[in-house]
Amino acid sequence: MSDAIRLFGLGLGPGNPDLMTVRARGILERADRLAHFCKKGRRGNARTIADAVLGADPAREIAMVYPVTTEIPADHPDYAAALNPFYEDCAARLLAEAEAGRIVAVLCEGDPFFYGSFMHLWRRLRDRVAIEVVPAVTGMSGAWTRADAPITWGDDVLTVLPATLPGNDLARRLAATDAAVIMKLGRHLPKVRAALGEAGLLERAIYVERATMAGERVVPLSDLPEDEDAPYFSMIIVPGSGRRV
Amino acid sequence: MSDAIRLFGLGLGPGNPDLMTVRARGILERADRLAHFCKKGRRGNARTIADAVLGADPAREIAMVYPVTTEIPADHPDYAAALNPFYEDCAARLLAEAEAGRIVAVLCEGDPFFYGSFMHLWRRLRDRVAIEVVPAVTGMSGAWTRADAPITWGDDVLTVLPATLPGNDLARRLAATDAAVIMKLGRHLPKVRAALGEAGLLERAIYVERATMAGERVVPLSDLPEDEDAPYFSMIIVPGSGRRV
Repeated sequence: MSDAIRLFGLGLGPGNPDLMTVRARGILERADRLAHFCKKGRRGNARTIADAVLGADPAREIAMVYPVTTEIPADHPDYAAALNPFYEDCAARLLAEAEAGRIVAVLCEGDPFFYGSFMHLWRRLRDRVAIEVVPAVTGMSGAWTRADAPITWGDDVLTVLPATLPGNDLARRLAATDAAVIMKLGRHLPKVRAALGEAGLLERAIYVERATMAGERVVPLSDLPEDEDAPYFSMIIVPGSGRRV
Repeated sequence: MSDAIRLFGLGLGPGNPDLMTVRARGILERADRLAHFCKKGRRGNARTIADAVLGADPAREIAMVYPVTTEIPADHPDYAAALNPFYEDCAARLLAEAEAGRIVAVLCEGDPFFYGSFMHLWRRLRDRVAIEVVPAVTGMSGAWTRADAPITWGDDVLTVLPATLPGNDLARRLAATDAAVIMKLGRHLPKVRAALGEAGLLERAIYVERATMAGERVVPLSDLPEDEDAPYFSMIIVPGSGRRV
């Protein structure tokens, strides 16, 4: 670990602790402070991934509790109005720890620079403290691996889509790609299902929940009950069918 | 390691040995046979990643030497005619090792199920031997991390494109996405540069070579000399510019 680095964006991977990188494991063991995002009254997703490695050590831990999460749509002005001061506060708190000479690691599920909340801290702190981002196995790699479904063959194009997009946009993009991953499902599952149907991809779509973790679930989307909401660690993959040799 | 598993598709990550997963490192140390693909007269890319971990131990190693690589375009019938018997031979060889009771790990750069050559062995052997695929940090995660460029924000769509696609197809897909990764550059760099220009993305494109490894190079694409060919470990990323909070 370089002495100059005081803040780490620490990618912990898809969920199984053995799928952390050697570097992430080392920093997790040695950092003075371990910060993680969480919902009010809930354990953080990234913190949960670290359970298998971390003992109880409250003095090292910094919980950053979101003021809102899914109660307000992310494109509503109230969302930014609530989140902006929250990220500012978190950034100030972590900066103070780093300036006091402590090594601070922000725990991130998946890869920090791929739809990661850490990015909002990173852009506030990058000019003020030396930061190292530790890349990680993405949740989507975990999903296609556990679904036993190579995602891209030959010249396949892969499109990664947030389920938050409008249904007609999803359908159009799905129809134009060879392989797809749909993230951030939550309450958007019915819309995503309809878009996949419109794109003629319903039979190829696989629903994956908690890939690589306890409670893992892999089912063809067409077998998933219509009335289910999707939990946080879930996505849909549509494997490519490109060149086999 | 489950006793039942005899064959591993072992993702080794983007290049830096500390970015292997804990699981990959363990299997690398314990497997009886380590197989890797390579070009005639060259060391394999995945094998090179393992150099920092593996001592010289020729009895464990199985080199699978491609009969052709880039001499024949991958969409030419001669390519499949040369590669098909090669993959069949490799599969038979690894199956014989596994049936003799040995643990065989196929070393893969990046993630095995993301454009991986291992997939061609996997589809031939999946019904004949118990296989575990170990997901890994992708080369693209290594690239956007080392470029200090978060790839997707908010509702950004990410498109992963092989540079082997026709130029007009590349340009059309680039113009329709928020963020992009362009893989398999090789001799296609001039075509990719033109497509990025047509899509109005030249100023946002970053060229990344040997991310996380010795000899790493990160430059704005517009600063890259026009007459360069891109080596194996290289890609272009176009970071998204979605919702900041």
